[in-house]
Amino acid sequence: MSQISQLDTPAVLIDLDRVEANLQRVQDYADSHGLKLRPHIKTHKLPRFARRAMELGAVGITVQKLGEAEVMADAGITEIFLPYNILGAAKLARLKALSERVHITVTADSAETVAGLSVTFADAVGPLTVLVECDTGMGRCGVQSPADAVVLAQLIAASPGLEFGGLMTYPAAGQVEANAAWLAAARDALDAAGLAPAIVSNGGTPDIWRAHEVTAATEHRPGTYIYMDRFQVSKGVGGYDDCALTVLATVVSRPTENRAIIDAGSKALTSDTLGMSGFGLIEAYPGAEIVGLSEEHGTIDLSNCTNKPAIGEKLRIIPNHACVVSNLFDTVTLISGEVVVETVPVSARGRVG
Amino acid sequence: MSQISQLDTPAVLIDLDRVEANLQRVQDYADSHGLKLRPHIKTHKLPRFARRAMELGAVGITVQKLGEAEVMADAGITEIFLPYNILGAAKLARLKALSERVHITVTADSAETVAGLSVTFADAVGPLTVLVECDTGMGRCGVQSPADAVVLAQLIAASPGLEFGGLMTYPAAGQVEANAAWLAAARDALDAAGLAPAIVSNGGTPDIWRAHEVTAATEHRPGTYIYMDRFQVSKGVGGYDDCALTVLATVVSRPTENRAIIDAGSKALTSDTLGMSGFGLIEAYPGAEIVGLSEEHGTIDLSNCTNKPAIGEKLRIIPNHACVVSNLFDTVTLISGEVVVETVPVSARGRVG
Repeated sequence: MSQISQLDTPAVLIDLDRVEANLQRVQDYADSHGLKLRPHIKTHKLPRFARRAMELGAVGITVQKLGEAEVMADAGITEIFLPYNILGAAKLARLKALSERVHITVTADSAETVAGLSVTFADAVGPLTVLVECDTGMGRCGVQSPADAVVLAQLIAASPGLEFGGLMTYPAAGQVEANAAWLAAARDALDAAGLAPAIVSNGGTPDIWRAHEVTAATEHRPGTYIYMDRFQVSKGVGGYDDCALTVLATVVSRPTENRAIIDAGSKALTSDTLGMSGFGLIEAYPGAEIVGLSEEHGTIDLSNCTNKPAIGEKLRIIPNHACVVSNLFDTVTLISGEVVVETVPVSARGRVG
Repeated sequence: MSQISQLDTPAVLIDLDRVEANLQRVQDYADSHGLKLRPHIKTHKLPRFARRAMELGAVGITVQKLGEAEVMADAGITEIFLPYNILGAAKLARLKALSERVHITVTADSAETVAGLSVTFADAVGPLTVLVECDTGMGRCGVQSPADAVVLAQLIAASPGLEFGGLMTYPAAGQVEANAAWLAAARDALDAAGLAPAIVSNGGTPDIWRAHEVTAATEHRPGTYIYMDRFQVSKGVGGYDDCALTVLATVVSRPTENRAIIDAGSKALTSDTLGMSGFGLIEAYPGAEIVGLSEEHGTIDLSNCTNKPAIGEKLRIIPNHACVVSNLFDTVTLISGEVVVETVPVSARGRVG
């Protein structure tokens, strides 16, 4: 069995023990509050972890692209939620083909999206379940008010080939009360309209430990919780000891006393800052700051370090945003402690459409 | 022949006519000043464009990773410059294997790197040519002074299996005079030491039209010039009419009067801002600003637009940074005008090591 220290760099390491603990911890939390979990696979893009989450109790998975759904369906996952407006003949045809082999559910936030789905599924064997996407504060997609949610739900319910399935939101981080109030009002308005929502789907890892406060929600779609990252730790969701994804990099240059250059740049760590300073955390060198990235170089400021890494030394970095790192690597290496278990392809990476 | 409008999204479009014009324009400039070109393939990662640049007069190509070099060697390119400190047994073995089938040259900025190269190539058929990387202002890798460049050149020259090849820098944008002075001083010091540099390799697209002012340089390594992008236009290197790479995206939501959401987020446009505001330019909608990206959504502010795009409409976006977009897509679609020519794999994308 090989050790992490023998791996070539840059490499993405996934700590299997931490993955298991993270999955179990959130499943236990959801179970204790009677919330269903429908985890988002965008963070890992690996069928094995999608399956594991379902073994632990998740009711299905969430994907963000048809291409991700196709990979997961190929891997045997049969309960898939795709919370996206699917538009255009090519994608609608793929969605219909998928619906013939797995149970797939989508969202819509406009009459245009509903119209395309209805034309496509009018002659299908069974109806497509469509949830109304709600903008409860994120400022991205979604209907703008509970009243608009009712109007779109009515349109879905009246559209051939479609079935109204409920509500979905990706909420703004930190706005738990506003999100809860919005969804409760929309649920009540739907109840009054005779369209009680079977599913009210809430999402996100940053407020996962407050998910039960969103009382209208029937389920939650966390993504990053499986790996955690520097951003989630900054939000207090967990500690660095919970971070399952690290990037292994080599110090390739020490041009000055206080500068180290590593072979992980924006192609490995991504330029996502998510509002933080720096591009990742190096636990082994407290005070070291990753102050700059170009594509293939990371620049580390060692001014505040007492010990400083040598040329050739390998460093493990907790990235700012784990999900985007998964998308940059064709393979990741599964580890347990310091032992390498297996290197596996990131099957659903790069599925842009 | 299909049209761009028939393509599914998101997709990366490469305008072949603009590519040809961009390659020719810079080659003409270099020829007129007696500068050699060794273009960097990181921007496109496509063997066909590497070959085309060489047909037009480039003396070889530049890559940033061993994996990129291997792809280009497999495609028949035999003159490859890899300006990176190659460290560790695995990479050194790959470098040696490559050197047995193509002419590959590398850089070093430390005695540690030189030692590893020397041990590896001591028993090789011919010596490995090693250039000294110089930090002429970028603050990344590189020796810190012309005197240090001489010391490292002497070490290379004295190391079994190695041959001193000259100097290399990736300069800071806008610091042409300082870069020129540094390289001239280093060249003079090497001349005085009896180690006249055969190659002095300068790089970068931002100052490409001033490359001839760096009189010590024998060659230049531009990368982004082949595609151009919003950043290069902001630096005055060219106009939007020169931008050969665009991202085609679909408007998937119009939740409010002044907000459009597209199916291109940071997985398509990247979160690189390069100090600019916004994440790309939509030429067809003056005033439209791409104000936010999540992984699969781009948020456009239409407040300053008179015309506003409808749901389902396709938009072409000039990204901030073309090179990183190439790395995110498994394929790109070559176009001429509005006509689709061919969709091709991005052979050298994702070569992290």
